[in-house]
Amino acid sequence: MSRFRHLISIDDLSKDDIEHILKKTDDFLEAAMGRERPRILEGRILVNLFFEPSTRTRMSFESAMKRLGGEVINLGSVEASSVAKGESLADTVRVVSGYGDCIVIRHYREGSARFASMVSEVPVINAGDGAGQHPTQTLLDLYTIRKEVGLRGLKIALVGDLKYSRTVHSLIKALTHFKAEILLVSPEALRLPEELRENGRFAECSLDYAVENADVLYVTRIQKERFPDEDEYRKVAGSYRITARMVRDSDVLIMHPLPRVDEIAYDVDSLPNAIYFRQAFYGVPVRMAILSEVML
Amino acid sequence: MSRFRHLISIDDLSKDDIEHILKKTDDFLEAAMGRERPRILEGRILVNLFFEPSTRTRMSFESAMKRLGGEVINLGSVEASSVAKGESLADTVRVVSGYGDCIVIRHYREGSARFASMVSEVPVINAGDGAGQHPTQTLLDLYTIRKEVGLRGLKIALVGDLKYSRTVHSLIKALTHFKAEILLVSPEALRLPEELRENGRFAECSLDYAVENADVLYVTRIQKERFPDEDEYRKVAGSYRITARMVRDSDVLIMHPLPRVDEIAYDVDSLPNAIYFRQAFYGVPVRMAILSEVML
Amino acid sequence: MSRFRHLISIDDLSKDDIEHILKKTDDFLEAAMGRERPRILEGRILVNLFFEPSTRTRMSFESAMKRLGGEVINLGSVEASSVAKGESLADTVRVVSGYGDCIVIRHYREGSARFASMVSEVPVINAGDGAGQHPTQTLLDLYTIRKEVGLRGLKIALVGDLKYSRTVHSLIKALTHFKAEILLVSPEALRLPEELRENGRFAECSLDYAVENADVLYVTRIQKERFPDEDEYRKVAGSYRITARMVRDSDVLIMHPLPRVDEIAYDVDSLPNAIYFRQAFYGVPVRMAILSEVML
Repeated sequence: MSRFRHLISIDDLSKDDIEHILKKTDDFLEAAMGRERPRILEGRILVNLFFEPSTRTRMSFESAMKRLGGEVINLGSVEASSVAKGESLADTVRVVSGYGDCIVIRHYREGSARFASMVSEVPVINAGDGAGQHPTQTLLDLYTIRKEVGLRGLKIALVGDLKYSRTVHSLIKALTHFKAEILLVSPEALRLPEELRENGRFAECSLDYAVENADVLYVTRIQKERFPDEDEYRKVAGSYRITARMVRDSDVLIMHPLPRVDEIAYDVDSLPNAIYFRQAFYGVPVRMAILSEVML
Repeated sequence: MSRFRHLISIDDLSKDDIEHILKKTDDFLEAAMGRERPRILEGRILVNLFFEPSTRTRMSFESAMKRLGGEVINLGSVEASSVAKGESLADTVRVVSGYGDCIVIRHYREGSARFASMVSEVPVINAGDGAGQHPTQTLLDLYTIRKEVGLRGLKIALVGDLKYSRTVHSLIKALTHFKAEILLVSPEALRLPEELRENGRFAECSLDYAVENADVLYVTRIQKERFPDEDEYRKVAGSYRITARMVRDSDVLIMHPLPRVDEIAYDVDSLPNAIYFRQAFYGVPVRMAILSEVML
Repeated sequence: MSRFRHLISIDDLSKDDIEHILKKTDDFLEAAMGRERPRILEGRILVNLFFEPSTRTRMSFESAMKRLGGEVINLGSVEASSVAKGESLADTVRVVSGYGDCIVIRHYREGSARFASMVSEVPVINAGDGAGQHPTQTLLDLYTIRKEVGLRGLKIALVGDLKYSRTVHSLIKALTHFKAEILLVSPEALRLPEELRENGRFAECSLDYAVENADVLYVTRIQKERFPDEDEYRKVAGSYRITARMVRDSDVLIMHPLPRVDEIAYDVDSLPNAIYFRQAFYGVPVRMAILSEVML
């Protein structure tokens, strides 16, 4: 019995549901690395319905599905599809839900994944809907923390753009289940909105303080578009950049949802603190756990 | 033994061939829904050679192939391929026929599928060649009728653009095998050409008459480009639009090759009359029957 | 035990390595034609990382992988990927090497495949890096020669653009292992560079002489861009064009890396001399041999 039919928002999951998925992910670690070859989804078909590109997420889902012996069908470019001929989202979802056993949807409009789940004949997984949710990213972030340092008694620092980052907002909501202590490290203009600070223990601090005191730094990109001019952007972004010199004498682990541009210097990559590539990899076993949950 | 090596035109099939495919489709219905997992095409490769995009058709063939345990290779965008470097269709077909066990071709030029079948080392299935044929669409239309109402003694109304619609023309030719009574419902400017009325029983009628008397309404889109001005188009298209109010007290079944824009109102979707999504789904088992016919 | 972990340049392979791959290719011939279905790479995933399109090469690798029961994940269009957001090649390779068991990379920058192999967690195969190497093309050329006429005592004529053709330069290097006699047939402006004539027996000759004396003509395209004006190009290209009349009374075999435009007339295709379509097909078993070498 599946705990959920669709996965639309991390908010739909109880603490118990989340722990169930994280535990299940452990079981798929070896298979995600290709060392075991369970074929539990053999003959099943995943339909990737990406209305905006997100190559990384799509490839990660494909890898997860294929590691379990399943098959994948991609919508391909939207310009070439019936969508371009004026077909409604509901019609597209209804038709493609006849082509497979599960739909992964990415759409630029908030709420579209939930809408898709209401008309689909098969389970729908949200792979990001505009400013909305991207629950598998949150689950892989949680899994990474649990695996690398543990979720109990966690002290995590969120660094960078805390105002607009969807990833950060979803992670915060999920972390409240685990009573984490959350340090906030951001420029004045990109502070975490008040309404997101309701449940949980939050404290603003400097980057130096976070490096010394947190178990994990979760770094996000500060985007140029958020600033009135390039000079201002450079100055601000530069002071939130992580370098090897800054962290090499600390035990703090560094996470990043990737892709990074220059918010983490390349000299950090070879330090034991750097776990962002492992974090990206954990997306595969987490998605294996989710795919098997909704399809079996 | 296969009844045919290539599938280029519905006209190449005898009534017996058509009935053979429709009967075979029944055997794949459960598998198309993922409830059975025959792996009769395991290790076989289908090459999708789409010189113009047709996402729906491509995905349906992919689903059919993968439901049978087979694999698919896509040409991808033509701009990126050797075709863009000036390679002839014959060369492209010869080379890719070395990559798989069957080619599905879609091309903007009439006759190109037949030409491809002459140079290919493997079976070729036509997935639409310009103003020419699209035989798997016709077969799925026939299967839908047979499954939902039966082909014997059929009274079908064709609604909309009967002048230019390739889908309608092919369906008419195929229906003559089954001695169907065909009602024609179209604007003056989009009437069925005389040369297509040679074999069979045809009668022009109003939409109201068709709703009351036909077993099936086969609706097609009336395209703006067919009219001299937008006002004229709106007026005409509006009077061939199907709404719930119009059909809810009738037993008439409504088919459409999809995608629809607004020729069928959304309020029709939830009525038992609406079978167009089922029709789209039947494309999968029909193509499973065809793929197994040419490859086994 | 694999003889090599990565395949970056034909120069990295000893004569013994090359012969090992060519011999192994024989074992996969039947499977490449779909007559046998070994599933030795079942559960394995190949990641195609094509930073510039090369549909033919990508499809050939896909066919090879799928003929062995393996799966393929494609990066898809680069414009849509993280690369477009400014991600470094190293980061992209590190992340996608977590999605599969082998990477095939095509990149516009020379040296990028070797660089990728240094940061990847899994084997990397070079499918062409700018003006650099494309070793699987060279191996399929060698296999074709070995299969169709034999490598021992070979007399081969290279025809066309010998100055810029990467394919020709790599083939020459590989042929020195086999002490082939090499005839050079090119316009003055496109002669083979001196530094490539160091090891081996070379002689310039006319096309007529080559047809009469060589075992194989390896024809390449003469590109318009190499000439100051169109008239000059036409005149030169025309005199290196192969026609049926020219070769039908000879035993010489004709190879071409494809796609061709008009450097080989279509009337050659049906002659027994024409082996270029078989050559393209041999790309599949050669790549099966290479994929199984690096992954098993």
